[in-house]
Amino acid sequence: MQTLPGFRDFYPEDCARRDYITAVWRKVARRYGFVEYDGPVLEGLDLYRKKNSGGEILSQLFNFTDKGEREVALRPEMTPTLVRMVAAKESHYKKPLKWFSIASFFRYEKPQKGRSREFLQLNCDLLGEGNQAADAEMIALMVDTLRAFGFTEKDVVLRLSDRNAWTEFLREKTGGDASLAEFLQIIDKLERESDESLHEKLGTVGVTLPDVRDFIANGKPSFLTALMADLEARGLSAFVEVDLTIVRGLAYYTGLVFEVFDRSKKLRAVAGGGRYDRLLSDLSDGSVNLPAIGFGMGDVVLGSLIDQVPAAAEAMKAALLLASASEVYVVIADEARRPEALGIVQHLRNAGRRVDFPLVASKVGKQFQNAEQSGAKVAVVIGNEWPVIKLKHLSTRTEETISLEALADRITDLIK
Amino acid sequence: MQTLPGFRDFYPEDCARRDYITAVWRKVARRYGFVEYDGPVLEGLDLYRKKNSGGEILSQLFNFTDKGEREVALRPEMTPTLVRMVAAKESHYKKPLKWFSIASFFRYEKPQKGRSREFLQLNCDLLGEGNQAADAEMIALMVDTLRAFGFTEKDVVLRLSDRNAWTEFLREKTGGDASLAEFLQIIDKLERESDESLHEKLGTVGVTLPDVRDFIANGKPSFLTALMADLEARGLSAFVEVDLTIVRGLAYYTGLVFEVFDRSKKLRAVAGGGRYDRLLSDLSDGSVNLPAIGFGMGDVVLGSLIDQVPAAAEAMKAALLLASASEVYVVIADEARRPEALGIVQHLRNAGRRVDFPLVASKVGKQFQNAEQSGAKVAVVIGNEWPVIKLKHLSTRTEETISLEALADRITDLIK
Repeated sequence: MQTLPGFRDFYPEDCARRDYITAVWRKVARRYGFVEYDGPVLEGLDLYRKKNSGGEILSQLFNFTDKGEREVALRPEMTPTLVRMVAAKESHYKKPLKWFSIASFFRYEKPQKGRSREFLQLNCDLLGEGNQAADAEMIALMVDTLRAFGFTEKDVVLRLSDRNAWTEFLREKTGGDASLAEFLQIIDKLERESDESLHEKLGTVGVTLPDVRDFIANGKPSFLTALMADLEARGLSAFVEVDLTIVRGLAYYTGLVFEVFDRSKKLRAVAGGGRYDRLLSDLSDGSVNLPAIGFGMGDVVLGSLIDQVPAAAEAMKAALLLASASEVYVVIADEARRPEALGIVQHLRNAGRRVDFPLVASKVGKQFQNAEQSGAKVAVVIGNEWPVIKLKHLSTRTEETISLEALADRITDLIK
Repeated sequence: MQTLPGFRDFYPEDCARRDYITAVWRKVARRYGFVEYDGPVLEGLDLYRKKNSGGEILSQLFNFTDKGEREVALRPEMTPTLVRMVAAKESHYKKPLKWFSIASFFRYEKPQKGRSREFLQLNCDLLGEGNQAADAEMIALMVDTLRAFGFTEKDVVLRLSDRNAWTEFLREKTGGDASLAEFLQIIDKLERESDESLHEKLGTVGVTLPDVRDFIANGKPSFLTALMADLEARGLSAFVEVDLTIVRGLAYYTGLVFEVFDRSKKLRAVAGGGRYDRLLSDLSDGSVNLPAIGFGMGDVVLGSLIDQVPAAAEAMKAALLLASASEVYVVIADEARRPEALGIVQHLRNAGRRVDFPLVASKVGKQFQNAEQSGAKVAVVIGNEWPVIKLKHLSTRTEETISLEALADRITDLIK
């Protein structure tokens, strides 16, 4: 009996890493005034058919017919669910909406480094405000999320681009933008194709390769000045670069697009997003019309990046150590005192402490071994000196005696 | 576009409730030294076919054939995944294992009060220790989880029973236990059937209804004394009653079984569990042999019970208020000072505060309205007095002036 290919078990040591990542995501999103939402894991297949983000996702769906003859699918991304939810209750909420979710997604892809068939993703979206202050708030949230893991501008870079800049470029060079979708697809693959091939393809849309290269080197998208000034005022601009080669694969983006990469270029994109100002209107047949910007950040590539950057790996290690299974181990030195020991266990747990103790009578030396392996910092020894309690500091091996009344406060002090 | 029948959207106000419930679950489980694990949402269908918990679950599976021609199913419960994981890596872990998970499950049932097709469940399991101290630790964890929501022994009761007591009863009355499974099924439905029907059915296994009723009224399962003494020493015995009519539906339980009910009897069982000492051995073809005890607690009935008990509802409301979207709202009284305001926003977020501010230039009165609706306790006003900052307490409407250096600490004090 094994997991299905591309699926993961989270043993306690893996789950602790996952919980660390989601706790940081949640903490930073909440600092930005974002509120959490979630939808069902299973949705009607039509939700994805209608949006049709570009074809690839549809071919990767885990879809089937349920016992009620409905065509259903495991969610491959969050945006369709978000748009469905917002469209249904849009009038209940003050704008702008600042919503985030942390959820699992499912894609039938070839399992490989950085890709699994079930993955966790943070999604943050700001709906109802189309200005550059909203763009900057989202970029800042993305950067601060990375900073909270211990990454600096030397480790990661957020590459900004703008589909509108390319639209203007195309209009200027060719007098129209009818071939925009085709043109963006060529730009998307710019770094993976030969000059000959690019020359030929660009020719069909009426553009030359030198002009494209010149625009990438010297083009200044119109949004740049205000957006960068905003990020500068927050002290976050060192994380951000303009890179017009970024256009993103999904069809629904309408303006600003961005991706996060590790500076060492060893990994896939860590996160990505952009503006999708027409999607709510398109999916609600025009009944709801809100500009929107959002991004997603998955746990798989992020986890690799944490392992790769020493400061981030150290920060995670320290957090995991703090979250170890137990803070206190109650040693039962005299089995006749088990009832009193159980009372102490309960007393300390009531005070919020994480407490372990032996479920079977065992030698005191063995119990101290278990105490150390449990991650506890202190052992409380209950024996024939009762009601005097012995407190042993497991790192320094020093000890003190203490009364029941003073115990919980003293331990809380020692743990902090 | 709607959710599928029996599935739920979690709008921010619903998600906050869900996060409150899972935070309490996680907090108490960790106090007991339990560590979190998780498995995939999708498993091979054979995992459930092999365990065959009693037929009903198999008929409620969301199962299908994936793009790789594998028979797969959305998980309907956690125990098979847990047992698969533990059997695969059992030798890596010190015994006893104290593991918990918080995860979504899927059953194609008729949606009704207290039942949805996707639900969240806390699962706690203690593996590798078969004694009554382990039983008591699990019962205490269940009771403390309920206490942490604000329930007292007047609100909830944990009913304990023992399949072994019924086995002994059957042996004593009939000289054997060949008809045990059939007999337990009759006991399980005791309160829902007529005396005539019961008389007839019990007759086929060689037992009389008066003997059964007498055993329920006066029988003392052998585990009772030690287990109750343990819970007494912890001060938790008032939550617990022996009730031999509880036998639980699942086939794999081997001894102690228990369920939690609301005292008002308005709701379905809030939680339930028991010992399954042979399941690991059965599912691993004898290669791993660990005694085990576990329980599950779902979010749907628990949520109804919280709403029904004023102290629990108040505790939740207070927790949700503390977790409101924002703590601080930065009012930009002079739009020319937006860069300075952005610097303050970033400064306060770096200090861990939850901060909101206007993304578009707007009147100061409007901004204060937004501040109050955001849940913020204080407004920081940035205007033409800069670098002097005005701090306004939103509940008392008093204000003070403060320097940038003192700002973050002062706000942190005010929030706490």
